[in-house]
Amino acid sequence: MRVAIVGLGLIGGSLAKDLRAKGICQEIHGVDSSQENSDKALELGLVDNVATLEDASSNCDLIILCTPVNAVVTLLPQILDNISEDQTVTDVGSTKLEIIESVKDHPNRGQYIPAHPMSGTEFSGPEAAQLDLFKNKVTVICDPDDCWKAHLDRVCDIFKALGMKITHMNASEHDLNAAYVSHLSHISSFVLASTVLDKEKKVTEIFNLAGAGFESTVRLAKSSPDMWAPIFEHNNQYIVEALASYIDHLKIFHLALTTKNYDLTKALMSQSNEIKRVLENMDKNGGSNE
Amino acid sequence: MRVAIVGLGLIGGSLAKDLRAKGICQEIHGVDSSQENSDKALELGLVDNVATLEDASSNCDLIILCTPVNAVVTLLPQILDNISEDQTVTDVGSTKLEIIESVKDHPNRGQYIPAHPMSGTEFSGPEAAQLDLFKNKVTVICDPDDCWKAHLDRVCDIFKALGMKITHMNASEHDLNAAYVSHLSHISSFVLASTVLDKEKKVTEIFNLAGAGFESTVRLAKSSPDMWAPIFEHNNQYIVEALASYIDHLKIFHLALTTKNYDLTKALMSQSNEIKRVLENMDKNGGSNE
Repeated sequence: MRVAIVGLGLIGGSLAKDLRAKGICQEIHGVDSSQENSDKALELGLVDNVATLEDASSNCDLIILCTPVNAVVTLLPQILDNISEDQTVTDVGSTKLEIIESVKDHPNRGQYIPAHPMSGTEFSGPEAAQLDLFKNKVTVICDPDDCWKAHLDRVCDIFKALGMKITHMNASEHDLNAAYVSHLSHISSFVLASTVLDKEKKVTEIFNLAGAGFESTVRLAKSSPDMWAPIFEHNNQYIVEALASYIDHLKIFHLALTTKNYDLTKALMSQSNEIKRVLENMDKNGGSNE
Repeated sequence: MRVAIVGLGLIGGSLAKDLRAKGICQEIHGVDSSQENSDKALELGLVDNVATLEDASSNCDLIILCTPVNAVVTLLPQILDNISEDQTVTDVGSTKLEIIESVKDHPNRGQYIPAHPMSGTEFSGPEAAQLDLFKNKVTVICDPDDCWKAHLDRVCDIFKALGMKITHMNASEHDLNAAYVSHLSHISSFVLASTVLDKEKKVTEIFNLAGAGFESTVRLAKSSPDMWAPIFEHNNQYIVEALASYIDHLKIFHLALTTKNYDLTKALMSQSNEIKRVLENMDKNGGSNE
């Protein structure tokens, strides 16, 4: 199989490594708007060559879009305009509704498989690519009934070959869930980092006590703004709702503290402890990774 | 050396393991208000015996208080009332101001060394004890000028023998720093967990997409309410300030989202990315672990 990977960052690069290591494809053509990323991906041997989107996609059986989600919305209709009936397109974006909406009336819509492999790290760029990033993780395929079977099977078979479990969801359900369990985590982390960084301007030694607990909660604050701003744009409505709910919950905690109602803080924490059930289940099932 | 460990949870149990493994003490006497914890600590061989506070502390060279911080405030004056001049007391509490205040006029104040080993996990109880929990981490010693030298040296030598670096801070500075880089992280995590758990009541499958990013940001939400409520009480003023600042920063992010000002979200995230400097430094220095 010949595969075009569009967007040679962490996910695109990691897919390239796995596809090659598992012998799933013979040729990998890379596309990236950044010359630096393209050069690096070639140098690292992630791809066999770099090409224009037109050249890469005309030559390949499968085109995987690994760009930020705003670029997916721009590129996907163009790709569907030009592909032949035995070519398949998929993407790995963290949002699904707006991407699907952009091609909903396209005659080749069935050749596009909307996917979200729940795997990643806080790092970005081709150097961050790693083998087995997807192993034992979950890929969400959205609205599979709108995909043509041969193309759906091709994409599912590949994700399964990378060690992933496939789950189905409608796009709206996906975007709502992602807002709460992925996008909100990123905002809580970005903002926790900036809150303490702002305090550092006055209390220069503030980070002297920072440890593993802090590191864990701000890890995601290292994530790429170029990738995340478009996600916030696509999934605006659900993220606004999730963030408003988070702020409301924080205000209750703040009120408990200002009124020195420590029984309430204890009760609130006991409720939060219920997350053990979720995390234990994730550990049991391998969990996803993003 | 004979040591009394008061509070046989994660930290007390881990100290016991290390003190024994490194041959620092010949006898470890355990004290815990919970019969279950006492039995478990004996069964696990963490301590040689369990005793009353009176018996354990009268027999030992060093008494280490590893209870929640409210219990430290209750027990510390009683212990100082009864110790002889060659006995030393220390604690491992996450707050320092209120504990030090509770014995500031005590004639034996100099025998108490206020410490905060920055190490821990989200687990609790004697079963959670682990070897080398303190290795390469930092211990903060507060207000060392108020400690008598022989006692200060004794405690510092022990923490160093466990592989820890010693840093000094005044108690107020410690509590402020801890509010921002430790206590606030815990609140952000507790509340993130409860926000999504509340949503789960309506959207039962919400956690289907939860992955490593979510796990990282809610890990601390598993922490013990019995330990944390007293910390929130002791460090109320600084934590209220830190949490209010976090909520203010979140509101700015929320406003950027509701006004669809994605340039602003990008700028805010770029500022947050500066946390890379802090985390890289922590990695370089071994970092602390709480």
